[in-house]
Parts: sequence; C-alpha cells; structure tokens
Amino acid sequence: MTELAGRILAGDARALARAATAIENRSSKAESLLRELFSHTGRASVIGITGAPGAGKSTLTDRLVHELRREGKAVGVIAVDPTSPYTGGAILGDRIRMLSHHADPGVFIRSMATRGHLGGLAAATTDMALLLDAAGRDFVLIETVGVGQDEVEIAKLADATVVVLVPGMGDDVQAIKAGIMEIADVFVINKSDQPGADRLEREILALQSLSTRRDGWVPPIVRAVATEGQGITETLAAIRGFLSRGDAKDRSVANWSLRLREMLREHLLEQFANIDFQAAAAEVAARRCDPYTIVHAWINDAGSKPVRN
Amino acid sequence: MTELAGRILAGDARALARAATAIENRSSKAESLLRELFSHTGRASVIGITGAPGAGKSTLTDRLVHELRREGKAVGVIAVDPTSPYTGGAILGDRIRMLSHHADPGVFIRSMATRGHLGGLAAATTDMALLLDAAGRDFVLIETVGVGQDEVEIAKLADATVVVLVPGMGDDVQAIKAGIMEIADVFVINKSDQPGADRLEREILALQSLSTRRDGWVPPIVRAVATEGQGITETLAAIRGFLSRGDAKDRSVANWSLRLREMLREHLLEQFANIDFQAAAAEVAARRCDPYTIVHAWINDAGSKPVRN
Repeated sequence: MTELAGRILAGDARALARAATAIENRSSKAESLLRELFSHTGRASVIGITGAPGAGKSTLTDRLVHELRREGKAVGVIAVDPTSPYTGGAILGDRIRMLSHHADPGVFIRSMATRGHLGGLAAATTDMALLLDAAGRDFVLIETVGVGQDEVEIAKLADATVVVLVPGMGDDVQAIKAGIMEIADVFVINKSDQPGADRLEREILALQSLSTRRDGWVPPIVRAVATEGQGITETLAAIRGFLSRGDAKDRSVANWSLRLREMLREHLLEQFANIDFQAAAAEVAARRCDPYTIVHAWINDAGSKPVRN
Repeated sequence: MTELAGRILAGDARALARAATAIENRSSKAESLLRELFSHTGRASVIGITGAPGAGKSTLTDRLVHELRREGKAVGVIAVDPTSPYTGGAILGDRIRMLSHHADPGVFIRSMATRGHLGGLAAATTDMALLLDAAGRDFVLIETVGVGQDEVEIAKLADATVVVLVPGMGDDVQAIKAGIMEIADVFVINKSDQPGADRLEREILALQSLSTRRDGWVPPIVRAVATEGQGITETLAAIRGFLSRGDAKDRSVANWSLRLREMLREHLLEQFANIDFQAAAAEVAARRCDPYTIVHAWINDAGSKPVRN
C-alpha cells in the first residue's frame, strides 16, 4: 500500500484533500489510488440531494450535516455545481458553508464544477464519494441541481435520493419537477410554511398514485423549514427508513451497473478526445472521403493504443 | 461497383427498397453499399420536419410531397416514429400515406422506429437519407416528433429544419417547444385558422428578439392550414430561401461533424453491446473486484479485436 492510501485510511485530512484534488483533475494517480482503496469502501451511506434552484438544498444539506455531527458521525459533502468554475459560484458556495463548519475536522466539503460537454462528472463524483467512504466518512451527501440530465443522473446514483421541492414555484418549475420526481426516495417540501404546501403535497400524492415503484417503496413526504431547522430529524429518519429496507443490495448493484457504464463512457471519450471532428467533417462535406472509412480509422487507431493503467 | 449500387444509382425502386431494409437492420452490407454510393451523394436537399404530437406534421409533410411532385421533383420521406415497431404505429403511418402516393414511383416512403437505449437512430437516419440522395431523390423529408432528445437531434441534422407549431396547446407543450425552438430554420404555425395563432406568432417573435443566431438567419414564420392545403407553397418558399443563403456550406460541415460523432458513438456502443453490466456490477457491489480494473479490461478486450469493415 502506498503511503498516501495508508494516510487516507487513517483519516488524515491533508492526505484526503490531496487525493480529492487529484480526482478533480482526473489524474491517473487518482485512479491507482482508488484501486488501492476500493476494498475499504462500501461502509458510508451516500445520500443524493437534488431539486430546482432556489429550493433550499444547500441549507437543508447544511442542517443535515449539523444533525449528523451532533450524533458524532463523520460527514463528507460533495456539492456538484453547474456553474462554471470561473464564475466563482462553486467557490462561493464552499466559503459560505465553511463558515458554519470551518473548525470541524468531522466535515469535509468539496465543490465539483461540471466538466463541459466531455462529460465525466458522474464518474468523478462517484470517485469522490468512494474516496470519502474509504476515508471513514459515515455519510456522504451529494448535492446537485436537478436541472441538467447529468445532475439528475448523479443524484440517482446515491444509496438514497432526496428531492427537495418548494410550494408555489409556478409552471416552469413543474417541468423540472417532472424529470426528478421519479428518482425521489424521499420528498422534502421545504419552505413548507409558505402558501401552497398542501397543494404541493397533494400533487406529489397524485403523481405517486399513478404508478408503483418496482421495489414497492412509497417515498415519504417530509415537511421542512430548513432555515428554522424544522423537519431535519424527520428527513434523516425518512432517509434511514429507506436505507434500512430489505432490497438495498439490489439498488447497490443497479447503481454499480450505471456507474460502470458511465466509467466506460468516460474512458472511451478520453481516447477520442483529440479527434478533430471539424476537419474530418470538411473532408466528408466536400465528398473527398466517406464517413464510414473515417470512423473505422478512428476506432482502429484507438484500438492499437494500449490503455493506460 | 456492385450490381446493387449500380441499380440504385439508376433509380431502380426495388433495389432501393432492398438497401433501405439493410440500413434498417444495421447490417454490414448496408455500410459497404453506402461507401460505394457516398461520392454520388450531396445533391438532395434534406429537410427535417419536427413538432409536438398532434401538430399536423404528417399532413404538412404529405402536402409538401404533393407540391414537390407537381414540380416534377423526386421525393423521399423518412418517418422517424418514436412508437415501438411492435405497437404498429410506424406501419399504420406508412399505410395511411401510401394511400395518397401509392402509385407514384417518384415518392419513396420509409418509417424508422426508434431503436431503444442503444441509440443509433440518428446514424441510421443519416444513412437512409444518403441512400435516397444517391438514388436521385431531389428532396428527402425527415419527419420526427420533437419530444425526445434523439428526435430533435435528427431534425437538426437536416439541411433545413422546419418546426411545426399549433395555437393553444397550453403550458405542457410550451416546455416541449422550448427544446425545439432553437433548431428551427423555418417556423410553420399550422392550424392557423384556430384561435391563438396571433398570440403564438407574438410568442415566437418575442423569443426571436431575445437572441440572434450565429449565422444571422431570422427564421421566417409561415401560417398554414395543412389539411386545406393553405400555406404549403409559402412553406416551401421559406425552406428554399434558407437553402439558398450564402453559408449553407458551413451548415453542411457542422452537420457532418455532429454526424461523425454520432457514427463513432454507434460503432463504439456496438463493440460493447455484449457486456453484462449487471454481472460486473454484482462483483463490484460485493467488493470482489474494483470497477477500474473491470473497465480497463473491457477497453483492452475491445481494442484487441479488429473492427469489421
């Protein structure tokens, strides 16, 4: 075992931070480290928390962290922020949260920016969750914005997924909701002191009545006012209810199946990252070369190169 | 040149039908045929026609075919139907249209069903359009339902894309519209004799005022009542206006760049089609093997196999 892996398993915060940076940079060092650590993972509960912008996900996450810390649990938080790393959105989020947990070594927080069209965010987030798991975190909270398809995928890959909704957000948000409704293991109606909470609960119940989940689970609906700390223990209880059900193992296998696909896709894209599609397209558009010959050449070229490990 | 290729270039309808079936089945024979034919393509105008279900796309397509036939143009129609091949939706659609063009060898119609999660619909549709192009069709109309991401992609890959909207379809359709608005080169307000046509036109103009296209084109808005044959010549004129603009070549290169990506993706997926993700996931979930080792083994296995050509 490498020294870094040993230090991470021992809970060394500085080693953890170094490894997290390697994962963010998608370096080959990160992968060999995770291979070493993998057999030490599988102990953490990974919780996805998603919802529309403005639903209060960060506040809810923050309160859940406080609650878990009160129980003495070690916590990791991965904030998947769809804003560019250059807008400062992700960094600002970290700073705000750091204020409330800054002196607590029991909380490790990382923001991950989306990585553009090349994808790989789901694979990177999975890697980060594995790292925090190996480092002895009891809970890993992954906060994503339930808008893009990528973010929804990531939240879905958790052991339990919490969807945060708020009353009275109008029709535009209904469309967003449609995409994330089906991934919810637990619903939280946040800002439930505002008008429309009853109506929203009825809407959720109506949607639930339309179809039964294959695993038979009926996602509980928890009312919360995260800014006031209301509904936090209830949210945690609902999460634990889901985690302790009988077929949690099936979910884990299903998740790994999706994650393996995602990892395969990322590695394949990496192999083809240097292709100049525009130049090839100009050749084809001018009928100087047919597209089939070009695509086969790309694949055969890639096949002849050994994959790094 | 093979005999089949020669007969297709000579306009033989039976040879065309045989080749179309080979493309639908994604057989390797189809690909070698298209390699032969490719240098004879690039003459047809490929028109994508998309819109929400119930917008009257099929009727509009049918009327455009009649108009083009009146001009003596040879026409191909590709109907991309999101319903399963087993529901009979695609077949029924063919039959209905066949009634109005059944005795006309100047019209060749094919329905393509979506191919499920493996994708490849965009690549198959591109191949079909190339075949019809090589077979001397002056216009190839590709009709898709603008709901799924795949269908939107396919409509976008045409030389010109027509988005069909209808007045008064309510808020649910607004969400669908949002995804297809940006791909329109020509807007058709169909059923424009119904209430709400003015409002819909104002909405489109409002959306257009928000942003300028990179190519400077302002998509014209045509009012039509396809069932009455109204607005058909105007739609065709609008399409031709777009096709005859200066930077049509740039669009062609951009389209080929997207198509090459799509073809590469399809070929890669084909290589990995036999992977048992579920079995691998069970190994990983039980921590008997780490996911990185598995993914590398898959890629190295695929790389050692030569690609068929």
